Amino acid sequence: MTEYDRFFSRAAATMQESAIRKMGALGVRVPDLVSFAPGFPAPEVFAWDDFRDVAQALLDGSDGTVLQYGPTRGYRPLVEALPAILADRGIRSSPDDMIVTTGSQQALDLTARVFIDPGDVVLVELPTYTGAITAFRNTQASLAGVRQEADGIDLDDLDRVLLRERSAGRRVAFLYVVPNFQNPTGLLIGLEKRRRLLEWAARQNVLIVEDDPYGALHFDGVATAGDTRPIKADDAEGRVVYLSSFSKTVAPGFRVAWIAAPPPIAAKLEVAKQAADLCTGALDQRIVYEVWKRGIIAARLPALRAHYQQKRSVMEQALRRELGSLVSWPEPKGGFFLWASLPEPLNADALLQRAIGRGVVYVAGSAFFVDGRSGRELRLSFSAPSHARIEEGVRRLAAAVREELAESPRGRATAASEASRA
Amino acid sequence: MTEYDRFFSRAAATMQESAIRKMGALGVRVPDLVSFAPGFPAPEVFAWDDFRDVAQALLDGSDGTVLQYGPTRGYRPLVEALPAILADRGIRSSPDDMIVTTGSQQALDLTARVFIDPGDVVLVELPTYTGAITAFRNTQASLAGVRQEADGIDLDDLDRVLLRERSAGRRVAFLYVVPNFQNPTGLLIGLEKRRRLLEWAARQNVLIVEDDPYGALHFDGVATAGDTRPIKADDAEGRVVYLSSFSKTVAPGFRVAWIAAPPPIAAKLEVAKQAADLCTGALDQRIVYEVWKRGIIAARLPALRAHYQQKRSVMEQALRRELGSLVSWPEPKGGFFLWASLPEPLNADALLQRAIGRGVVYVAGSAFFVDGRSGRELRLSFSAPSHARIEEGVRRLAAAVREELAESPRGRATAASEASRA
Repeated sequence: MTEYDRFFSRAAATMQESAIRKMGALGVRVPDLVSFAPGFPAPEVFAWDDFRDVAQALLDGSDGTVLQYGPTRGYRPLVEALPAILADRGIRSSPDDMIVTTGSQQALDLTARVFIDPGDVVLVELPTYTGAITAFRNTQASLAGVRQEADGIDLDDLDRVLLRERSAGRRVAFLYVVPNFQNPTGLLIGLEKRRRLLEWAARQNVLIVEDDPYGALHFDGVATAGDTRPIKADDAEGRVVYLSSFSKTVAPGFRVAWIAAPPPIAAKLEVAKQAADLCTGALDQRIVYEVWKRGIIAARLPALRAHYQQKRSVMEQALRRELGSLVSWPEPKGGFFLWASLPEPLNADALLQRAIGRGVVYVAGSAFFVDGRSGRELRLSFSAPSHARIEEGVRRLAAAVREELAESPRGRATAASEASRA
Repeated sequence: MTEYDRFFSRAAATMQESAIRKMGALGVRVPDLVSFAPGFPAPEVFAWDDFRDVAQALLDGSDGTVLQYGPTRGYRPLVEALPAILADRGIRSSPDDMIVTTGSQQALDLTARVFIDPGDVVLVELPTYTGAITAFRNTQASLAGVRQEADGIDLDDLDRVLLRERSAGRRVAFLYVVPNFQNPTGLLIGLEKRRRLLEWAARQNVLIVEDDPYGALHFDGVATAGDTRPIKADDAEGRVVYLSSFSKTVAPGFRVAWIAAPPPIAAKLEVAKQAADLCTGALDQRIVYEVWKRGIIAARLPALRAHYQQKRSVMEQALRRELGSLVSWPEPKGGFFLWASLPEPLNADALLQRAIGRGVVYVAGSAFFVDGRSGRELRLSFSAPSHARIEEGVRRLAAAVREELAESPRGRATAASEASRA
């Protein structure tokens, strides 16, 4: 029996491997590779001492529920803490809105299952987060891309795409957006645009799924907490399903994220989660809760922001030094990602093998575009590597870019014009 | 905007809340309730001291991967340990067969997604595990029940049901079985029957999904390790997808289970898991791995078996003492569950409110039957409560049973005949 294809479901037949995970796996196999591929937080800024103290106290055996099956909604004190966490972001909510998820990826998956029928359309930004693409495609959604501008999603294009999809007789399940330091572009949706997005959703009767893992990581001098005010904060109608996570502010190894949604939606998500994994890890939730309760998350945030901002600056400086105006990017005002554009006529997918040969890896932009395009863009994650590794990786990337240009007739012209300007 | 129904998917519209989870939630609300409902392991036998030592060592900050995103397949040393764990059960396997899951519930969910299209049939035992029922129903499977005998699934009925479903033009995705100390009946499939099941699967070209969370918990004198030999152990053809878990032998709060499947199936499950939650909790996997590596699981198993066997005996003795021959059950030879039948004309669903009023809760058998029947059977979990609580719970259950009988004309006759025999 070697022929398993006939046993697979239609959904399984079309499932696609995550490009980011694939690139991440490379890091393990290629020695001395500098990886700008996965959006990993930096373990050196995790609160190890606090985690150890908290774990020690929790594991003393006096409370059996620390390692027991738990409620599907989540560890109750954590569920009750979430409205306070969201209040700091301007969101009014109650524990009835909340469901703790096994990382934000599960939040995307549950959202997909609860709203998407095969063939339904999900509206997404061009480009958008690959984890969302795979979760939505696994429920056999059709993904319709909407252009982005410097201040985020293009509302005119959004209207055009919605009209086109509805005219074609397709049901639009929801709009998925990452308004704060988007993965992969690092873009921030402007505040005025956020309000207009809510009006649009009300006018067109569309749900918004707002994914906000990076909001707390705004960079001094270029973005304030006010700039990251979630769309959900002004959602008087209950039209926004809001996703956030402790993966970037505590640690991803704990797999603790959450959804805030109107209670009828939260109730449905809970039933979906029962079948998906019963409950999120009990110890993980307890550690995250204790760390929050002791004020450790809040106390460490300024240092976290500074840490990632410095790494971003190191990457920007290295890119300018090594590649001059050969590459360009919108300044990341927060988060983990820099979205770089290669010079004409290079292609980020075509460059990848050479880059890996040189000892550096990134995620080609094509992984984030649902319209199948493959172009000059690539995502560089500056969050995990050290300053020295960022600089080394950019040097390797620059060498790969210059080699690729040198081998391309049009590329040689680009390089020459760059040299004469420098 | 209060009308969310139009936004839900067809799958969401038919999702059903787990009866066990509902009963479990009751335990929190009703004071002093004795809960025989959820199949929780006993926290007093968890290896708290070892967990604390291991966590302390892991969280010293020297290895960032302890709290980082990890590979979707699982923490590599754990993935490589699984074949050794399975070798003790007679299964030959390799790391390429393995995928670590976020509890066995996720294993069921991923299996459902990878094999089931809406309308496909899954063959299940009558009764069967509710978590499997919800996972399969959430992918819109149609569940076809097969009778059980004292030594497990009835092979003649299995053939009849398969023929009936195929004749009706339906695709059979797989057969789901729990051969060891089945949830809910506690039954063990006989060894000869396991071999015949494999022959049947080959003859009919059906996949078998074998769920084995309880196999290690066989009770001295009534079942040996040999009696629990998995179907997978004799699967020369690669026809069995095998699920197991550390929830019952380490602790469920860690959410670490796994699937062993032929590599092409494991590869597909991996892609499905990427979209479901990226990876299982890193710290959880590390703790489970270290506990295994230090020999703690193996060293503690005899005590675990004795612990649950004693609780089973306490429950059996209490039932005989309090209810005599009014209730009957197949002797649990391992695992967590006792499957009791009430006297005629009682109904386990109808009795439930009275039982809760008396301060005891169980799961009515109807939750486990996919054919919609509601009858005299109920599942009593003896795993979590103390001896004293088991005895108290059975006293309360007995009182509820006698009251219910007293209020039913036919029931009075049953009670009288029982009294004259006693």
